[in-house]
Amino acid sequence: MAVIFPSRRVRKTPFTPGVEAAGVGGYTVYNHMLLPTFFEGVAADAAHLKQHVQIWDVACERQVQIKGPDALRLMKLLSPRDMDRMEPDQCYYVPTVDHQGGMLNDPVAVKLADDHYWLSVADGDLWQFALGLAIGRSLDVEIDEPDVSPLAVQGPKADDLMARVFGDVVRDIRFFRYKRLPFEGREFVVARSGWSKQGGFEIYVEGSEYGMPLWDALFAAGQDLNVRAGCPNNIERIESGLLSFGNDMGRENTPYECGLGRFCNSPEDFIGKAALADQAKNGPPRQIRPLVIEGEIGMCAGSWPLLADGRQVGQVGSAIHSPEFGVNVAIGMVDRSHWAPGTRIEIETEQGMRWAVVQERFWR
Amino acid sequence: MAVIFPSRRVRKTPFTPGVEAAGVGGYTVYNHMLLPTFFEGVAADAAHLKQHVQIWDVACERQVQIKGPDALRLMKLLSPRDMDRMEPDQCYYVPTVDHQGGMLNDPVAVKLADDHYWLSVADGDLWQFALGLAIGRSLDVEIDEPDVSPLAVQGPKADDLMARVFGDVVRDIRFFRYKRLPFEGREFVVARSGWSKQGGFEIYVEGSEYGMPLWDALFAAGQDLNVRAGCPNNIERIESGLLSFGNDMGRENTPYECGLGRFCNSPEDFIGKAALADQAKNGPPRQIRPLVIEGEIGMCAGSWPLLADGRQVGQVGSAIHSPEFGVNVAIGMVDRSHWAPGTRIEIETEQGMRWAVVQERFWR
Repeated sequence: MAVIFPSRRVRKTPFTPGVEAAGVGGYTVYNHMLLPTFFEGVAADAAHLKQHVQIWDVACERQVQIKGPDALRLMKLLSPRDMDRMEPDQCYYVPTVDHQGGMLNDPVAVKLADDHYWLSVADGDLWQFALGLAIGRSLDVEIDEPDVSPLAVQGPKADDLMARVFGDVVRDIRFFRYKRLPFEGREFVVARSGWSKQGGFEIYVEGSEYGMPLWDALFAAGQDLNVRAGCPNNIERIESGLLSFGNDMGRENTPYECGLGRFCNSPEDFIGKAALADQAKNGPPRQIRPLVIEGEIGMCAGSWPLLADGRQVGQVGSAIHSPEFGVNVAIGMVDRSHWAPGTRIEIETEQGMRWAVVQERFWR
Repeated sequence: MAVIFPSRRVRKTPFTPGVEAAGVGGYTVYNHMLLPTFFEGVAADAAHLKQHVQIWDVACERQVQIKGPDALRLMKLLSPRDMDRMEPDQCYYVPTVDHQGGMLNDPVAVKLADDHYWLSVADGDLWQFALGLAIGRSLDVEIDEPDVSPLAVQGPKADDLMARVFGDVVRDIRFFRYKRLPFEGREFVVARSGWSKQGGFEIYVEGSEYGMPLWDALFAAGQDLNVRAGCPNNIERIESGLLSFGNDMGRENTPYECGLGRFCNSPEDFIGKAALADQAKNGPPRQIRPLVIEGEIGMCAGSWPLLADGRQVGQVGSAIHSPEFGVNVAIGMVDRSHWAPGTRIEIETEQGMRWAVVQERFWR
């Protein structure tokens, strides 16, 4: 744990004044921007999230804007998913890979028009890959980062709160679909999505100057709903099996290893397709698994090796105690030889050796 | 200011145990890695750096490794500098640009062999641009991030300290040249370079397991030289006019605007060459300038607009009080209309309006 200074390079967000006023307890840096990590505490935040409604500053989910006559052509190169099936109000989870099938990012694609897409990216400058590829292939497309800052509204009371600010029409938005809804004379993309399984929305706030007015409007409307500032919660998201790019997987992994094979259905010749053919047919040699770690554990500040007979059979990149389930929940990348539910594997944590047990499924 | 947690995604470095033991006061995140920002204090650290010798954990200067038959071809696309003039023991400062001439990064290229280069990058995933371009052009080249972590030895006593660990041969290394020198049975690239103007070296430590042994060896050898842990120092580097990518310039700027036109001498058709032709001939419409800011200033945690008659004529991305020169030193991007030395411009800091005065030259 150490202090961090914001700078122009490590940017504040349009919502930072609200986050600071709400008493943020810690930050991480994500896409060159501040991302809160807790407010009251990770466990207290999780308990509140599961009962009420929270406003999350996820401006760090920056948008890679792809616009122009060749936008769809570039999307088809970048996306293992069949882009022709994507409807004009849809969001697609798109595990993007390199020529060897290694994960580059796992953005959510938002289709704004046939020649206009956003990729709402995990941590990493995916725009640089898209730009290099577009230049290399001489595609007629513009790639930049627009002034769009997502704000998430998450929790079981999210529909009620959002309806008060955007109208009852929000209740009709289906999962991973969006509507364009007005706020103070501007229209925002409002999607039913977000990095929790408590339900909720992501508002793509276009224009930094609308950030705090929207933040304030949501808080003013939600006082009796016990609305609070929150952030992606490391307990809730591990219980829910939501993967964190860079923690749970990276370029060394394929989408099949990440359990994302169902998103690789494109008939097009996307980058990495040939390299993925074998795993598409025969399955991957290792894969993401939920694990319980026995005993007491500390903070997972790196990668914890999974060991069997002194040989490494995987690693864990995320682990934390779950008060709700009364166990230490973890996400690991586990070799095929040891991935069957019930398998007990030794794990080397920073506080010593523990036992990890492969689970049948995530907790939610 | 807020607390930051390391995670697998925000990595510790091979030198983190040494940095922590030395009492690091703050971190920033740079290339998904922890970078110390001060130890005793930024001003005390600067004073020590100018008198003695410091060891800096700059592992976050990650290497983009470009290797293979088409390595030089890719370098010629990426580099505005004439790569054919580069000698086999040389380091090149290479302002890398996109197709519109906008800065993508300002790495130091290290030539290891005709088919093998490292780009020691500033904050940003330049490997993604290089990879996208290589795939787009079907180049036969591998691009990855090797296990190489630079450690800098900076300050007027750097030669003496380095000679004790690597031998007197280090004294013969010329500026931006390197030698391969042995340490505990391994050979490291040791270059005369670093992000200060106090003199010194950067050791490209290949193999994380050699990190702490080398750190410890340097400290053991330098007790009587008053060696201390340090880090890139925001006072010294602004006084010296060393630019920080993301703070002082970004994709919205060309190399000419950054005062780096002299590095754009490639006869090849590098990416962005055509877009830069006009500025190569007529000069840029704005350019980096040293500035003094009058009065008291706070921490520059964003971008401070420069204003003339209510119109923006530039901005400052770095500013801090210099005890040595007794003024607030700053780096700005200033419009041609206001860049002449002596020009007084209003500046909007987070603490209120101040006056900034354009300087003839940096302080060192």
